[in-house]
Amino acid sequence: MALFSSMEFNSFNDLFLEQIEDLYDAEHQLTKALPKMAEAAHSAQLKQAFQSHLTETEGQIQRLEQIFREVNHDPKRETCAAMKGLISEGEEMIKAKGDPDIKDAALIAAAQRVEHYEMAGYGTARAFAKRLGLTQAATLLEQTLQEEKGADEKLNNIAESSVNQKATAAAGAAVTSRL
Amino acid sequence: MALFSSMEFNSFNDLFLEQIEDLYDAEHQLTKALPKMAEAAHSAQLKQAFQSHLTETEGQIQRLEQIFREVNHDPKRETCAAMKGLISEGEEMIKAKGDPDIKDAALIAAAQRVEHYEMAGYGTARAFAKRLGLTQAATLLEQTLQEEKGADEKLNNIAESSVNQKATAAAGAAVTSRL
Repeated sequence: MALFSSMEFNSFNDLFLEQIEDLYDAEHQLTKALPKMAEAAHSAQLKQAFQSHLTETEGQIQRLEQIFREVNHDPKRETCAAMKGLISEGEEMIKAKGDPDIKDAALIAAAQRVEHYEMAGYGTARAFAKRLGLTQAATLLEQTLQEEKGADEKLNNIAESSVNQKATAAAGAAVTSRL
Repeated sequence: MALFSSMEFNSFNDLFLEQIEDLYDAEHQLTKALPKMAEAAHSAQLKQAFQSHLTETEGQIQRLEQIFREVNHDPKRETCAAMKGLISEGEEMIKAKGDPDIKDAALIAAAQRVEHYEMAGYGTARAFAKRLGLTQAATLLEQTLQEEKGADEKLNNIAESSVNQKATAAAGAAVTSRL
């Protein structure tokens, strides 16, 4: 969410706009982070998932801009503190040392947290848009929400069908290192 | 997730522990935030939801301590940057000025982002525990995951059945303030 010096909500529209501005900043932050995640990924499938989600994210930014137009408000970004924290965790995973398969599992763990944050954000914004009778905005937010869910499921499949298996095998040699 | 100066994953267990330490810190941060959210809530139903989730969160911390015992590792907390960001957003909502019903909708928006973060974290940790054959840990993580989903649904119901309606009505008087 946007960190105003002091927020003021005198109408439900104020809150709706704050939510859209928050998502707008969050998505912009994500377009900077995803190429680094893709570069750090060891699995070709995971690399591809991050790259295709970058393309989706660029489309999601355009949808938010359509919404700003619908409500006749200039697109505005405010630092989304939560996304900043989420991305800094992703960066820790990128920098982490050790087995590349385990690092892939760590990158997925970080990315799924991001997807879940976005699902919550878009779910809320869609509910607000419906309540405000903003039909086009509600449809656009629903489209993005479905994409975020799809991205999360794709990461889940990559983890379950491939990365976590390899990561567990990698752990075989060092199973007692910390446990 | 825990922000180590430089993380190193030499076994899948290392990553599992990092995830548990992350959640352990996140839950501790949340026990500090939830009483403030409850105090700030205008709706009695919402206040009650935050209070009962505080009790659940305390139980979730105990489950994580059981898991630390199962893997013979001292409970350890590292600053979870994402939860820090999520909570700072909640605090902005607490401090926000304006209509109390709209502020309630804002508090719910912030809290649902927290719940979604936790769902992602526990979903990942449960998958890792299963993969590592840590049966008891997997069961405990599943229990908490279901509680987080339940808490999110409860907030959704409060928003849809009551708070958002009141917030929209409040907006009636100021519908053109920013749109």
